[in-house]
Amino acid sequence: MNEDANYDEFFWEILDRKESGDEAYILSKTLKTGFLVCTGMKNELILNDFSIEVEKEISSTDKSITHTYKTMVNSGDTFSIVKYGGYTQSMNHPDAELYNVSQRELNKASDLGFESLLEKQDTAWEKIWYTADIMISGDIKAQQAIRFNIFQLNQTYSGADSRLNIGPKGFTGEKYGGSTYWDTEAYCIPFYMSTKDKQVAKNLLIYRYNQLDKAIENAQKLGFNRGAALYPMVTMNGEECHNEWEITFEEIHRNGAMVYAIYNYVNYTGDVGYIASHGMEVIIAIARFWSQRATFSADKEKYVILGVTGPNEYENNVNNNWYTNYLAKWCMEYAVENIALLKENYPEDYVRIAEKVTLDESEINSWTQVADQIYLPFSEKYDVFLQQDGFLDKELIPAAELSRSERPINQKWSWDRILRSPYIKQADVLQGFYFFENLFDQESIIKHFDFYEPLTVHESSLSPCVHSILAAKIDRIEKAYEMYLRTSRLDLDDYNHEVHEGLHITSMAGTWLSIVQGFGGMRNFNNSLSFDPKIPQNWKSYSFKIIYRDHIIKVFKNHEGCKFYNESDTPVTISVSGKEVTIFNKDLVIL
Amino acid sequence: MNEDANYDEFFWEILDRKESGDEAYILSKTLKTGFLVCTGMKNELILNDFSIEVEKEISSTDKSITHTYKTMVNSGDTFSIVKYGGYTQSMNHPDAELYNVSQRELNKASDLGFESLLEKQDTAWEKIWYTADIMISGDIKAQQAIRFNIFQLNQTYSGADSRLNIGPKGFTGEKYGGSTYWDTEAYCIPFYMSTKDKQVAKNLLIYRYNQLDKAIENAQKLGFNRGAALYPMVTMNGEECHNEWEITFEEIHRNGAMVYAIYNYVNYTGDVGYIASHGMEVIIAIARFWSQRATFSADKEKYVILGVTGPNEYENNVNNNWYTNYLAKWCMEYAVENIALLKENYPEDYVRIAEKVTLDESEINSWTQVADQIYLPFSEKYDVFLQQDGFLDKELIPAAELSRSERPINQKWSWDRILRSPYIKQADVLQGFYFFENLFDQESIIKHFDFYEPLTVHESSLSPCVHSILAAKIDRIEKAYEMYLRTSRLDLDDYNHEVHEGLHITSMAGTWLSIVQGFGGMRNFNNSLSFDPKIPQNWKSYSFKIIYRDHIIKVFKNHEGCKFYNESDTPVTISVSGKEVTIFNKDLVIL
Repeated sequence: MNEDANYDEFFWEILDRKESGDEAYILSKTLKTGFLVCTGMKNELILNDFSIEVEKEISSTDKSITHTYKTMVNSGDTFSIVKYGGYTQSMNHPDAELYNVSQRELNKASDLGFESLLEKQDTAWEKIWYTADIMISGDIKAQQAIRFNIFQLNQTYSGADSRLNIGPKGFTGEKYGGSTYWDTEAYCIPFYMSTKDKQVAKNLLIYRYNQLDKAIENAQKLGFNRGAALYPMVTMNGEECHNEWEITFEEIHRNGAMVYAIYNYVNYTGDVGYIASHGMEVIIAIARFWSQRATFSADKEKYVILGVTGPNEYENNVNNNWYTNYLAKWCMEYAVENIALLKENYPEDYVRIAEKVTLDESEINSWTQVADQIYLPFSEKYDVFLQQDGFLDKELIPAAELSRSERPINQKWSWDRILRSPYIKQADVLQGFYFFENLFDQESIIKHFDFYEPLTVHESSLSPCVHSILAAKIDRIEKAYEMYLRTSRLDLDDYNHEVHEGLHITSMAGTWLSIVQGFGGMRNFNNSLSFDPKIPQNWKSYSFKIIYRDHIIKVFKNHEGCKFYNESDTPVTISVSGKEVTIFNKDLVIL
Repeated sequence: MNEDANYDEFFWEILDRKESGDEAYILSKTLKTGFLVCTGMKNELILNDFSIEVEKEISSTDKSITHTYKTMVNSGDTFSIVKYGGYTQSMNHPDAELYNVSQRELNKASDLGFESLLEKQDTAWEKIWYTADIMISGDIKAQQAIRFNIFQLNQTYSGADSRLNIGPKGFTGEKYGGSTYWDTEAYCIPFYMSTKDKQVAKNLLIYRYNQLDKAIENAQKLGFNRGAALYPMVTMNGEECHNEWEITFEEIHRNGAMVYAIYNYVNYTGDVGYIASHGMEVIIAIARFWSQRATFSADKEKYVILGVTGPNEYENNVNNNWYTNYLAKWCMEYAVENIALLKENYPEDYVRIAEKVTLDESEINSWTQVADQIYLPFSEKYDVFLQQDGFLDKELIPAAELSRSERPINQKWSWDRILRSPYIKQADVLQGFYFFENLFDQESIIKHFDFYEPLTVHESSLSPCVHSILAAKIDRIEKAYEMYLRTSRLDLDDYNHEVHEGLHITSMAGTWLSIVQGFGGMRNFNNSLSFDPKIPQNWKSYSFKIIYRDHIIKVFKNHEGCKFYNESDTPVTISVSGKEVTIFNKDLVIL
């Protein structure tokens, strides 16, 4: 009923099959994107630790080649089959070479043999776990869940190739067609940024930088000009590949996430040079989009953004979605700020970019004008920003008062009923409070959390993590823990009965955020790193590591207090619960 | 680009072919609805007025049978082929009888022969034209256009069968799949009501009465209860057969048109008994829908209707579409009024119906409560009702200021741009002013016309007629004439390059309305008939006839004045330009 429109599509066709001695190869092609993949296999048969030859029977179907071996073994013998695989694809090799390279890699693997390959694998994973592991004591289900998620995230994206990105299902299912969503910028980048070399997060940013031309072309098609860019909602190669107007044309907030990811990366890594080398062009193109997309309302005497879908996809075609308007305003201000920064610190880059994108002062001034006068819907009565114009016309009945037989509403209600209800699929206003928490005081965060969280049905896997983080921030540790469990065990417990469609890879990054930013209170606003560790009642302790600007910092928290260990050879200054703390090299601070 | 989603669908399959002497038959079936149709043919070959036998060659394809005749004729001979057809379908005969009945009808026709059939046809059309014809003197293009339209309307629907209705393309094209839209109630009924026996319009009403159960089932699926009904936007057998949420779930104003058609019919024919026999059940079910669909806004302290699409389909999922809210309010009030009428004048019917639909007083009171407090968006500044909440946030640039290269916007702009623009596809607020003109004063009609017409792009064929009628009402005869030409010659001049898709049958009824209600100023509010004839500058005169409550009234208008001739045997009282006039039987009144 609420399946994606492309649910029944096939993604692959088989081009060729090849047999060569012990080896077998299938060459296939993705239908729309035209990627070629060559898959090779070769089996080694081992009897009591010695390779043996066994006659094989070969059979094949349209999509498979099967090798069948029959042999007699004696009682007490150990018989093993080692299957080697060689995978190559056309992004890395010419089409005509795919078979040869696959064969070479396959033979390289079988020459090394199983034991050596296993050892290499061990070493590689040990390195990953060394920085990525999170240990939770006193809650086996929580411990199992976070490790399962960290494992899957690393299975999905290693970060070496900026042409690759992260699909919501990773490689675990064909739903969402392996495409990239704003999930990467909003949820995944912090995980890879904190557990891997900064080049990994940078590669994810460069992925979008390389697709800027396509985003400009996309915006042009929709009537924008002067190099304005609209990044696609769903993409493989930079082109939009979703097909519903309320998403592709209207869920434009994703454009802001592209800029937020740059801001987040620069704040965390200190790599301001990235703005000069890549970021500025993206930021300018997106500021151009927002300044054109906003129109002046003579009635409100403000700039408005009409006809959008916010992060809460249970609303379509609304006017003045607060999150979108706020993000648009911020993007334009951030553009102006970074142009000033480039002029000051990277004048040559500024001249190069200004020329390339034909930027002039009047255009920059227009961004400031629109940003200054953007309309942000607000309720005096509730003292909260409103999700969109007219939100208070809805019947604001808390989701908890809905009967269980009506949940999840996306399986029980017709679409129009969902749309006119107040129910929120995933954080919308609160997504903005999460992104820009440093710009709001605690009282305001509490007010907005208390207004919106009761209306939130969390029918997106990306919803609980943001609520978990904000709940921890406002000391609702029980709520934070409830939301944490909901996000972390989604696939292990399969409580939505959908794991056959694949795992929720991008929301797994949200689970990591729930611990590190939620309970750990890690933030990286204003070019500095801060923590405010808290712990759920039923945990004894937890610990995690982060890589921060060439330091590895280990954070430990139990009910008595917290400890920070600086593994690196240079001191690092952080802030803990509002106090500045310098941790010397190889030193431990107990608070 | 903006083709319907089912544009490439096939609607038919062939079940059987049969040959029998000179005859050939094809039995086919509509794919979704499962109607069977048997088509028979038989040719008569005539040489110089005498039937002759000619050897035929038979060939056939999947979908056709071809008879080919070859014979020698001498110079000066007249050789004719008369092709007789026999059509039968499964709504009228058992499936197994279709072939036999088709053969019987075919032979009946060929036994009568061409000349007799032609004579019958002549007589039938003469009868039709006697009441339906409109004569325009001094404007050949306008004369040709209206006759073309009247002919096509009569080709489409004869009115004898309440199981049949009118598709927007009639039988001239497969677009819209032959289904029924609210066009019937909003535009077609007045034409058939005024040019044919009242039973014809009644049959169109009964079509919906017979589908009430399906409409109740449809509403139930969407979460409504207690016998609330939502008629489908597009239907063949009472089930919804459109597939876009913004239309099926949200373009709910069509429900109001069902009630308006009953009101219109009763006002025109005086057949109050129809309310008791059929109408009341429909009216109650629709009042129930509106009272449930409206929700109370604590913010506005009014009932609101959220998430709708109005007649202007260039807006989707808006809140408080004035037309929808006004119509909903009126439907509930009309329900209460007719329940009172039944209690008073048809007490047995009232008891029967109240029992059948389990009606109670508290429910009736709730309709009054919702109707009394329904929110109608209004602008103090412009002194007009607003098409919907937030309409004034748009950039209100008149459509005339758009460059020609951007028109029609539905072929040049992306959907989101259309949605956030102020441009109106077809009359929306003005559709309400057309339906309920008697409830607004002239000044208010002028204000609304001047506010909305400049924003209207008339990209629906149903748009110009309503504007033509209202323009005539407010003495903008030139505008009315411009709109009249636009609607009446749409297919003849094919100025939208789409006539290959079929003719705009339902908008042809609008063309008739443009003359009779527009220039002629005919109205039938408050159980009485009135006229206010006006004439375009370049016409010498025009005349039309209407059948009104057993009277045939002929209306003639030229630049000197107007004449009304009562062809019937009893006097009739009408109102002309505000003055009551009684025309005696067979009498002429010159004004």
